[in-house]
Amino acid sequence: MISFVKTYRCTLCGRTVLPHEAKGACPSCGEKGILDVEYDYEKLRGVVTKTWLESNPVRQMFRYMPLLPLEQPHVTRMLDVGWTPLVKSYVLKDTLGLRSLHIKDESMNPSGSLKDRASAVAVLKAIEEGKSVVSCSSTGNAASSLACHAARMGLQSVIFVPKRAPVGKLNQLLVYGADVILVDGDYKDTYQLSKEAIKTFGWYNRNAAINANLVEGKKTAAYEIIEQLDFEVPDWVVVSVGDGCTLAGLFKGFYDFMKLGLIERLPRLLGVQSEGCKPLVDAAITGELKEAEENTIADSISVGIPRNPVKALSAVSASKGAWIAVSDRSILEAIKDLGKEGLFAEPASAAGYAGLKKAVREGIIEKDASVVLLQTGSGLKDPENIRKVLLTPILMKPDLGALKTYLKNKGDHHHA
Amino acid sequence: MISFVKTYRCTLCGRTVLPHEAKGACPSCGEKGILDVEYDYEKLRGVVTKTWLESNPVRQMFRYMPLLPLEQPHVTRMLDVGWTPLVKSYVLKDTLGLRSLHIKDESMNPSGSLKDRASAVAVLKAIEEGKSVVSCSSTGNAASSLACHAARMGLQSVIFVPKRAPVGKLNQLLVYGADVILVDGDYKDTYQLSKEAIKTFGWYNRNAAINANLVEGKKTAAYEIIEQLDFEVPDWVVVSVGDGCTLAGLFKGFYDFMKLGLIERLPRLLGVQSEGCKPLVDAAITGELKEAEENTIADSISVGIPRNPVKALSAVSASKGAWIAVSDRSILEAIKDLGKEGLFAEPASAAGYAGLKKAVREGIIEKDASVVLLQTGSGLKDPENIRKVLLTPILMKPDLGALKTYLKNKGDHHHA
Repeated sequence: MISFVKTYRCTLCGRTVLPHEAKGACPSCGEKGILDVEYDYEKLRGVVTKTWLESNPVRQMFRYMPLLPLEQPHVTRMLDVGWTPLVKSYVLKDTLGLRSLHIKDESMNPSGSLKDRASAVAVLKAIEEGKSVVSCSSTGNAASSLACHAARMGLQSVIFVPKRAPVGKLNQLLVYGADVILVDGDYKDTYQLSKEAIKTFGWYNRNAAINANLVEGKKTAAYEIIEQLDFEVPDWVVVSVGDGCTLAGLFKGFYDFMKLGLIERLPRLLGVQSEGCKPLVDAAITGELKEAEENTIADSISVGIPRNPVKALSAVSASKGAWIAVSDRSILEAIKDLGKEGLFAEPASAAGYAGLKKAVREGIIEKDASVVLLQTGSGLKDPENIRKVLLTPILMKPDLGALKTYLKNKGDHHHA
Repeated sequence: MISFVKTYRCTLCGRTVLPHEAKGACPSCGEKGILDVEYDYEKLRGVVTKTWLESNPVRQMFRYMPLLPLEQPHVTRMLDVGWTPLVKSYVLKDTLGLRSLHIKDESMNPSGSLKDRASAVAVLKAIEEGKSVVSCSSTGNAASSLACHAARMGLQSVIFVPKRAPVGKLNQLLVYGADVILVDGDYKDTYQLSKEAIKTFGWYNRNAAINANLVEGKKTAAYEIIEQLDFEVPDWVVVSVGDGCTLAGLFKGFYDFMKLGLIERLPRLLGVQSEGCKPLVDAAITGELKEAEENTIADSISVGIPRNPVKALSAVSASKGAWIAVSDRSILEAIKDLGKEGLFAEPASAAGYAGLKKAVREGIIEKDASVVLLQTGSGLKDPENIRKVLLTPILMKPDLGALKTYLKNKGDHHHA
């Protein structure tokens, strides 16, 4: 396997780091100096062509192996990640009056979220580096996807979670055999302990933005969108944003394809945050990133200090996109909207649709635009929060008369 | 679209019913007279060939359209059901000492279970028959899959559930916009009310075995197993059994492929039930079907009066298979076993693996057999029961020293 990676470059100071020395953030800038993987597009242009893509039989994310920073892929044993459905919208497209709307359904990944793309790369990198333990601090999809793929590849995962993590979120981790370290403290204490432990024990570090390879995994979603749309670039791509890594990944994917001459322009990116936690929306206006409150039901994007702000903010501006914040109420409403397409989204995921609705209403996204929405994770993962949007049905006697009255009062035209 | 359906035949009395008249069970025998769809294999042999299958670009269950009882498929709007991964086992294969073990991961269907295959057919049949409402009585995967695909196709779903249904199970139904009728009674009262309502209002009936078309949907899983194994027939196929429809569907699929000359023999079927609810295991021994208790955590196979006993029992005997019952404890243990492969199974699903383990231990399945296990549904659907198998992690101070002590006491060789 030839790697087309040229270098890892710091997004803050511009310093370059050789691929085999790039184990975390920039050695000069520390944790804020997120690295970006740079490829030899010149060489790649002769390899990753439209013809090559069209005849590529691999139907998962590693179909894009030349565009990934991997040397010795143990891909055959991996669960299939990626090549998720791009679901055509009928109902919501009409509701919003868009020319077209497609929903990239990332809940169809093995552990139920887009994070599988990042964790799949993390686990393969860990094997390359000879590690037998992978670790991160998270309660959400990052952790469950890491535990899933680590188990599959015979690695041990160690996951740090703060004590306020809902027990339900631990299920998936524990079933995959993760060592769950429940920390008697808040998210910051938990992250700090994970950082120390990873360093002390020499584990592989899958902590979000610190690891430049994770964005590379996520960018494959953008490649797939372009291929699944037959290389027609959508006007807008909409995604909810927490740390900013998914947004950065999408941008990178579209950027790669443009550099390779596979598309001629970038789609505009709409970054959606919750009104209860919108540090990036605010930073886009003020030019200054400040720690925000974490006050939203959209757990997966409730990130007061986003770890990838530079990449996220520049992705939106470079794509001539926009930022928008939505209320928790509209997020819950959006879960029901997506249900009309037969999709079951977690709150963070639904935030994307809530943002799209608002952007159309406010004229940010024009009525006849073509739009792709990222559905980042499965609604089955967050029963407690989703229950808030739903009315518990009234109890009814087992009697046809009672049912007739109920249906009549409901005024449902479906029932005679 | 040419239909290759010859007739619908009663599995009890042998009476045939014309396709367009087959709306439920046998008109002579009533609900116990489950119909079976018969195809014109002679004609089909010229259509469904190995070459045709290999060049078929459709990667979902409707790739097998000629083998389905559908006239006017509105397939383009459907969510993709089927063509789920056949996951190769590494860890569990070695643990059991099998020649090969593959796990057909049906949790990767749109609503998270194998039932999507049946509901997809149900919804298309409803549209063919001009119905705008589909209905069933269920709290589980049958209901959520029906609600999902009904929503997608713009139909209303009405789902009858008994009051003891866990609220968590209602989430998915309500998000998909189903009319959930919560009945103040037990499962029998609920089923009875659904039956009366479906008849009175003329809704489309998706109640399990009553509808012969559902088994036809499910059989596509068997086709895929054969194709994904490159037409090599496994020695055994293992599945957990409630009503018996999935088992019947698998048999039908393998049978079809044998009649078409695509395979030369049938795999042996292992039907697995829970010790707390095993009417079919008992009937296989005594020759007599008796109502059983429903006393198991494996909700999806907790069926005291299976509605498809004739097809299920004859599937196992015709394939020279076997029946086995497993304890709830071994089912919960099996959830953790499957976790080692990166799979998250619901209890009913894990029952299949528990049965496989027991069958190998007891010599029913020989050590060097090739085996396919059906993983029928996602573990994300049943957080309450799965929690029972898991130890809540101990709370730890945010202190590296405490962590070191914990890891040392745990004796984990991964940690220095």
